[in-house]
Amino acid sequence: MARDLFHKTVKNGLIKEGWQITDDPFFVKVGGVEFFIDIGAEKLIAAEKDDERIAVEIKSFINPSSISDFHLAIGQFINYRVALKIKDPSRKLFLAIPDTIYRTLFQKELPKIVIQEYQLNLIVYDIETEEIVLWQT
Amino acid sequence: MARDLFHKTVKNGLIKEGWQITDDPFFVKVGGVEFFIDIGAEKLIAAEKDDERIAVEIKSFINPSSISDFHLAIGQFINYRVALKIKDPSRKLFLAIPDTIYRTLFQKELPKIVIQEYQLNLIVYDIETEEIVLWQT
Repeated sequence: MARDLFHKTVKNGLIKEGWQITDDPFFVKVGGVEFFIDIGAEKLIAAEKDDERIAVEIKSFINPSSISDFHLAIGQFINYRVALKIKDPSRKLFLAIPDTIYRTLFQKELPKIVIQEYQLNLIVYDIETEEIVLWQT
Repeated sequence: MARDLFHKTVKNGLIKEGWQITDDPFFVKVGGVEFFIDIGAEKLIAAEKDDERIAVEIKSFINPSSISDFHLAIGQFINYRVALKIKDPSRKLFLAIPDTIYRTLFQKELPKIVIQEYQLNLIVYDIETEEIVLWQT
């Protein structure tokens, strides 16, 4: 499945940058609901006492309607962030998106306003090279 | 289709409360994207100079995963609200949900926190009576 391919791409991209994949998926149970965020990862930051920890929701944007994918991605990010704030507040949430959609839909005015206004963190990955090309926070 | 049934239910519920359906769907083109919100409606408020105007996105929550429906609903509300703030700032946005899901998923702690923190406006409708049973702002 294409979905699995994108999942593997982002995992490999994170590993290349020195992240350790700790959860696949990352399970969060809080406030009467259960969420499965795609990836949990951590990285040792030499200068700090604690590891840096992230959760990554991977979006492929392979559906015919990229707007529907965008709605779903925004909703997942909002809900997961609320859940993490309660359950694991030091873990930072990212939405991973392909560079092809970052260069198109995500350069349009309305998506840019939403990303900025709701402070979404993005990881942009290149499907060809299996590398992360941008971290946007 | 079940989806059309829920759509008709909310329309009839609004009409019963004196709303005039002006748009079905309500089209918004802004910032490089196009959205179709389910309903646009207005009501004459005798004490005020202008009509009260609303946009309503109708969710049926008929999918097996109500959490996926919840993600999508939150994303649509956020994106539509940003769009309306630019294009039609005096129009108020509502998410219409069936009373069955309001009494179950929407009473859980996490959904309640999301609704409150992101100031979502809800219309709760009864599918049996075709009536609106709650406006929550």
